[in-house]
Amino acid sequence: MTDIVAVYDVLVVGCGPGGFAAATQSSQAGLHTACVDQRASLGGTYLVDGAVPSKTLLDESYFYRLLQQRELFEQRGVRLPPARLNMQVAQAALKQNIERLGKVYKSELSKYNVTVYNGTAAFKTPHRVEIVQHGESGLIVEAKYIIVATGSTIIQCPGVAIDEAMVVSSSKALSLDYVPPRFSIMGGGTIGLEIACIFNNFGSRVTIIESQSEICQNMDAELASATKRLLQSQGIVFLLDTRVQCAERDAAAQLNVTLLDKRSKKNFAHQCDVLMVSIGRRPLLEHLNISMIGLSEQDFVENVDEQTQSLSKFPHIKPIGDVTLGPMLALKAEQQASRAIQSILSAGSVETSNFNFPPNVLYCQPQVAWVGYTEQQLVSSHIPYQTGKAFFSQNIRYNTLMPQKDTAVPGFIKVLVGSRDLKILGVHIINSDANELLPQASMAVSLGLTAHDVCKVAFPHPSLSESFKQATQFAMATAALPSINVRE
Amino acid sequence: MTDIVAVYDVLVVGCGPGGFAAATQSSQAGLHTACVDQRASLGGTYLVDGAVPSKTLLDESYFYRLLQQRELFEQRGVRLPPARLNMQVAQAALKQNIERLGKVYKSELSKYNVTVYNGTAAFKTPHRVEIVQHGESGLIVEAKYIIVATGSTIIQCPGVAIDEAMVVSSSKALSLDYVPPRFSIMGGGTIGLEIACIFNNFGSRVTIIESQSEICQNMDAELASATKRLLQSQGIVFLLDTRVQCAERDAAAQLNVTLLDKRSKKNFAHQCDVLMVSIGRRPLLEHLNISMIGLSEQDFVENVDEQTQSLSKFPHIKPIGDVTLGPMLALKAEQQASRAIQSILSAGSVETSNFNFPPNVLYCQPQVAWVGYTEQQLVSSHIPYQTGKAFFSQNIRYNTLMPQKDTAVPGFIKVLVGSRDLKILGVHIINSDANELLPQASMAVSLGLTAHDVCKVAFPHPSLSESFKQATQFAMATAALPSINVRE
Repeated sequence: MTDIVAVYDVLVVGCGPGGFAAATQSSQAGLHTACVDQRASLGGTYLVDGAVPSKTLLDESYFYRLLQQRELFEQRGVRLPPARLNMQVAQAALKQNIERLGKVYKSELSKYNVTVYNGTAAFKTPHRVEIVQHGESGLIVEAKYIIVATGSTIIQCPGVAIDEAMVVSSSKALSLDYVPPRFSIMGGGTIGLEIACIFNNFGSRVTIIESQSEICQNMDAELASATKRLLQSQGIVFLLDTRVQCAERDAAAQLNVTLLDKRSKKNFAHQCDVLMVSIGRRPLLEHLNISMIGLSEQDFVENVDEQTQSLSKFPHIKPIGDVTLGPMLALKAEQQASRAIQSILSAGSVETSNFNFPPNVLYCQPQVAWVGYTEQQLVSSHIPYQTGKAFFSQNIRYNTLMPQKDTAVPGFIKVLVGSRDLKILGVHIINSDANELLPQASMAVSLGLTAHDVCKVAFPHPSLSESFKQATQFAMATAALPSINVRE
Repeated sequence: MTDIVAVYDVLVVGCGPGGFAAATQSSQAGLHTACVDQRASLGGTYLVDGAVPSKTLLDESYFYRLLQQRELFEQRGVRLPPARLNMQVAQAALKQNIERLGKVYKSELSKYNVTVYNGTAAFKTPHRVEIVQHGESGLIVEAKYIIVATGSTIIQCPGVAIDEAMVVSSSKALSLDYVPPRFSIMGGGTIGLEIACIFNNFGSRVTIIESQSEICQNMDAELASATKRLLQSQGIVFLLDTRVQCAERDAAAQLNVTLLDKRSKKNFAHQCDVLMVSIGRRPLLEHLNISMIGLSEQDFVENVDEQTQSLSKFPHIKPIGDVTLGPMLALKAEQQASRAIQSILSAGSVETSNFNFPPNVLYCQPQVAWVGYTEQQLVSSHIPYQTGKAFFSQNIRYNTLMPQKDTAVPGFIKVLVGSRDLKILGVHIINSDANELLPQASMAVSLGLTAHDVCKVAFPHPSLSESFKQATQFAMATAALPSINVRE
């Protein structure tokens, strides 16, 4: 067996947002820290083939879509000849951007004196890990604490083999350097919807195939319905209650997909050029060889202490991020990283963000964003509430911005306020860049602020955020209060 | 003397944002209400020839400027032929938009049964006002309460006569249907700077002539310096410590302006095609004939009760908005409108927004926005504080957005936190659409939240607003706290 090459206080396995946060915080706190990642470019799925490429291409594709609104701009006095897209150049620029950001991760780690290993890590003993680089014989590293931040991978679909040519994963879709004429997507979750928007904006004919009867089932029903209408108005086709049976390439190099209509129980044929499978993600633990130390995947799901992020079998092993239960969000991974490091430091009170109310965003444009309770959750929990809804078409700032073509669904903000104490319980928004309108709502919901508190704040004038205050005032006015709906 | 045509509980003179808020709130509360405005299109300077046209043209001009960044888009795979501007069409669209919004004001007033008179109002007795429409013999209207919301007008400059042809007011500048090759502006306040940006973006050579040694003197010094560098990098020329002596049109139809360099005390010549005078605004009271009832302009400045908005000589007369002391902001007018109506209703507690911390925005792009104390104010008030500063270039969301050319000044957010209690005392931002990043800062400052509170909130990920949290964490870390600068 190879000698131990190094001993650390903390070894972080995986350098996505969670692993990165854990490694830098650990080192900043004076702990001797290393981190290992199997990819040359750091940042994990989040940075390399997930959120960052998706958001980057979304922004570019909506810019490209905006440029198609030539008649609207001409009415405003700006004559715009047609723009042309070169997807190869777009992909090259994206790749460069990701590499640049990966280097930022690397230089930050180096700034904090974190040793970075490139390779896969596998347990040898509870405190020892073998790192294999490029298939070469491994280094053995020992650590007092091991943080497992190995992330997640896609769930395969039986009968629909991913060949990364015509049947692709989301990672591959985000690196396609051409725009398929017909792009179909299996799965109507956030990942599927966002990639649908990208290719729809770039000119593909996009179809979403979803086995459930509705998309966005965790959304407030009104918001989900608006979202579907919005995406339909942009040209995306939805096949709901529909299951993919199999997909086969034919002689004409098109993909013949057999679909099952769950209501009529009949099969029907569907053709496309590329089919993306995005039916979910699962924890990625296979390289780690956890069985070697008597652990199962189930231990990572069931037996993690919420305060210390420790496995009950081995308290020095702390899983964070997508390998743990709950939403697979960078935000969660980063919060768990802070908890893990603080528990190692035995810091008294572990102060992390209030993740009971995670902010949610669908990065289409107009964006869909929400925080806190949905109306359905309030009803089923028997919490009495009042609703205030303001339309952005009545917002002065909205009316000073360049017009948007995608107004089939009027943008709105809905504020749900508890009837008893007027606390802000939930906020649901559909509008351009709603992700930047959400933070004030997140503050209100997670700090337990009331409608009165929000009304005390002077909002920038004119700004889209004034609609938050207006909707809050409307929500208050539906109570037995004097009915004053100030437009301000 | 004409007969009294109507008797009201409340007559509102002037229908800008303040007058509109007063009239609708008054009527909603069950008071018999009328309002009078001298213009056919309602909304006051704010809507007709001030903020709304300015913000609309700013947005359009920055969009036009964005379209010039052709090489940056080409690097991203989007080939864009040159765009062309037709300022006549742009102005026609703007006019149509303003008329549409004016009609919204009108239909809201009609919805609330507010009688609207078109004409000028002049006091006959303390409770009676004559309304003159189109110079025709007046109607006499009587009211228990009279709310004076007549707004403000520009201050003239001795020696520089405004002819609204070559020497123009800001109102005229905002309605110019051509782009002057050389556009010079007297006065480096917010109005001057925003209109400078509009014409600079549309292609004018813009010069700002300011008699003080710095622009934006109410800004945090670091922010003001960044703002000047930003506008300079966009091509705007600043002549500081410089006074306009006179301006004369020459035979070649150009304007010869004589300037005084205050430092060298020497005159020098300056040529331009249009000179805008924007050295400030003053309350507009002349049509109101206040001397008839023994009032002077000074009474409006000095003798207004802050709780009830009442004049001390005539408590039933309540001035609001630009005719009163303080910043000339729609926000202030609307707040005072609420106070005035609530005092008429004798409502117990007057609940209005906390105007001690007004949010401030300069609507250039990147925008400049701030709320609360500047560093200079904290130093001179001997309030111990800590600074946290985050650059948007390190923000993930920023890195997924289409690149901007105007990066000569890197966008940042600076959070000032009280050393003793860690309260958020001031927030200063320079970045795109900073007006929508400011609300969470306004909430923190005006509700007295601490850095701990902000750190408890889960911010949308990725979003620009995460930099607010990061800067807040940096500010905390400069204290004797464990130095954990989480990037999240």
